[in-house]
Amino acid sequence: MPLDIETDVVSLTTALVDIASVSGDEKPIADAVELAVRQLDYLDVERDGNVVLARTDVGRPQRIVLAGHLDTVPIADNVPSRREGDILHGCGSSDMKSGVAVMLRMAALLRPATGFGTPYDLTYVFYDCEEIEAERNGLGRIASQHADLLRADLAIVLEPTNGAVEAGCQGTLRVEITLRGTRAHSARAWLGDNAIHAAAPVLQRLADYQARAVDIDGCLYREGLSAVRINGGVAGNVIPDVCTVTINFRFAPDRDVAGAIAHVREVFTGYEVVVIDSAPGALPRLAEPAAAAFVAATGRPPVAKFGWTDVARFAELGIPAVNFGPGDPDVAHARDERVDVRVIERVEQALLDYLRETPVDDAPPLDAPPLDAPPLDQPRG
Amino acid sequence: MPLDIETDVVSLTTALVDIASVSGDEKPIADAVELAVRQLDYLDVERDGNVVLARTDVGRPQRIVLAGHLDTVPIADNVPSRREGDILHGCGSSDMKSGVAVMLRMAALLRPATGFGTPYDLTYVFYDCEEIEAERNGLGRIASQHADLLRADLAIVLEPTNGAVEAGCQGTLRVEITLRGTRAHSARAWLGDNAIHAAAPVLQRLADYQARAVDIDGCLYREGLSAVRINGGVAGNVIPDVCTVTINFRFAPDRDVAGAIAHVREVFTGYEVVVIDSAPGALPRLAEPAAAAFVAATGRPPVAKFGWTDVARFAELGIPAVNFGPGDPDVAHARDERVDVRVIERVEQALLDYLRETPVDDAPPLDAPPLDAPPLDQPRG
Repeated sequence: MPLDIETDVVSLTTALVDIASVSGDEKPIADAVELAVRQLDYLDVERDGNVVLARTDVGRPQRIVLAGHLDTVPIADNVPSRREGDILHGCGSSDMKSGVAVMLRMAALLRPATGFGTPYDLTYVFYDCEEIEAERNGLGRIASQHADLLRADLAIVLEPTNGAVEAGCQGTLRVEITLRGTRAHSARAWLGDNAIHAAAPVLQRLADYQARAVDIDGCLYREGLSAVRINGGVAGNVIPDVCTVTINFRFAPDRDVAGAIAHVREVFTGYEVVVIDSAPGALPRLAEPAAAAFVAATGRPPVAKFGWTDVARFAELGIPAVNFGPGDPDVAHARDERVDVRVIERVEQALLDYLRETPVDDAPPLDAPPLDAPPLDQPRG
Repeated sequence: MPLDIETDVVSLTTALVDIASVSGDEKPIADAVELAVRQLDYLDVERDGNVVLARTDVGRPQRIVLAGHLDTVPIADNVPSRREGDILHGCGSSDMKSGVAVMLRMAALLRPATGFGTPYDLTYVFYDCEEIEAERNGLGRIASQHADLLRADLAIVLEPTNGAVEAGCQGTLRVEITLRGTRAHSARAWLGDNAIHAAAPVLQRLADYQARAVDIDGCLYREGLSAVRINGGVAGNVIPDVCTVTINFRFAPDRDVAGAIAHVREVFTGYEVVVIDSAPGALPRLAEPAAAAFVAATGRPPVAKFGWTDVARFAELGIPAVNFGPGDPDVAHARDERVDVRVIERVEQALLDYLRETPVDDAPPLDAPPLDAPPLDQPRG
């Protein structure tokens, strides 16, 4: 069924969650998004693999990019979506199909000729493979092959921030430590050397690790060093000769990738640390004019972004970038991933207020927010 | 081509190795063995699935069982066999087609009326599915459905022992310990609880474990407690909520299964220990008259059997049982599985010496052993 982008943002989120789109399998959702934005004759649409780019080009002095990924982590018995009161449950509901729904609503509402006008040219980037190896990331491919299509004065990435402006982002580094031993029949264990047993001190160093927290531009970045995978074993009666631990280091943007690697090597002194992949962080850059204006418009103090997000790709292109989306980062990738529909509506309204020409107070309300909806900054359960 | 059981034991081993018989696919080899023993009119032959049972029944006061499995582990580019000097290479050459060849030669040579006489009634059991899940084991099926066919005063299992008598066997127990945590995005590691990190103390207890060695009837049984598998991890950016360690305990036969479980639970106090499978060990019982006579006849000190073998099934039926075969346990299941043909000949001779009526010194030699053949107890490369 085609996406109806004229419907309300919550229904649109629900429809997007119900199109399964685990990383690598984004074709159906990319097709649906492409079909939807091609209906809007004021947008130039390009398709590149499973990336959909849509742009206005009416000669405005400033251009804003809205960016969001279409893929999700593996489904954990949580598709299709399920609604309970104000909570929408489902894989990708927070990370980040609610953000994609807001983007589609901006595309539908902000029309150069009719509807809400906007002082900006706008670029919408819907892309694939954000949740997996960096080299497959669709935005990364566009950034390296068609950087001109991303040129802008500010990029807003609609990753889950619970409606707050989250500045910059952590860097990420994945390494492997492989323990080696000697195979033997487990009935004669003393003839072998158990590679799984040899992993004990590696796991203990992880369990004991004290993660750093650092303040940058008033944003507090907390680091984390975590095993994300462990595998070892040959058969039920064999002393295993190989055990591999995969470790993810999320680091504050005051470290570069080389510094992060050096730190992890120091933590695991005595072990061979093999780098699998890495991505630099992004400093918050909140003093840049376009970023400062957006932060001022939202009226809320910015905080640090913890997850690595594609703001770092915009940062590498010299474009100030912030994260601002309706999802809840605390439940991203969780089995019980969910989103508060009132936050989706508030983020849609806030973004519309910022992007449209008419000052907020004089503009017709998008829709009347329910009286009992929590303010954006209210703690949620 | 039918098996020629009148040929020499090495040619017979070669012919058996060249009939592929991975567990579950034993029909061709069982057909060949059945056809061969049906030629011998002094044997009563029964076929049950891929088990072949052949028995003399001439009213001797004592009965000896010779038992051997027909199946092998998966072929690793090592069938057909390949001969290099005194070494025969091939899947099953050690474990245990050389033992099966010795059994077939005993069947051919030990005739109640002609040939070498024997003071014993003899039962030959050729069976399937020893290398896989215990519940498919052909000897186990016969033991539970037709135990009367296995009744005997001594069972000799021709598993690889390099020509030594290996008494009894260890028991085996497999358990799982599952560490549980809470999933979270690895960029916000402090919101999760890392199940892989939680495995550190479990692996440390394994690394620190001091395995017991216990002397039973002069045989030293060494135990072993080993991780044989570890698995944890959801994705490269997720704090994992589950990590499972599979542990194999090989225990001396002075413990029963319940005692082994209690011991493992004690080692892992504070963790839930889930039993996956188990098999009891077998006490050596070398004081039993038939076992003592056999050990005396071989003229060599018995040693403990470390691997679990089907002697335990005979032990459960109250039948003393020993392992005694020409294969080399150190290369069983190896890609370069092989057997020294001189050991096959020596084991054939030793078994014939024990089983035939005529004292060794007065009997005609089976064939002249090569002058440079190593004694059975010489260390081999």
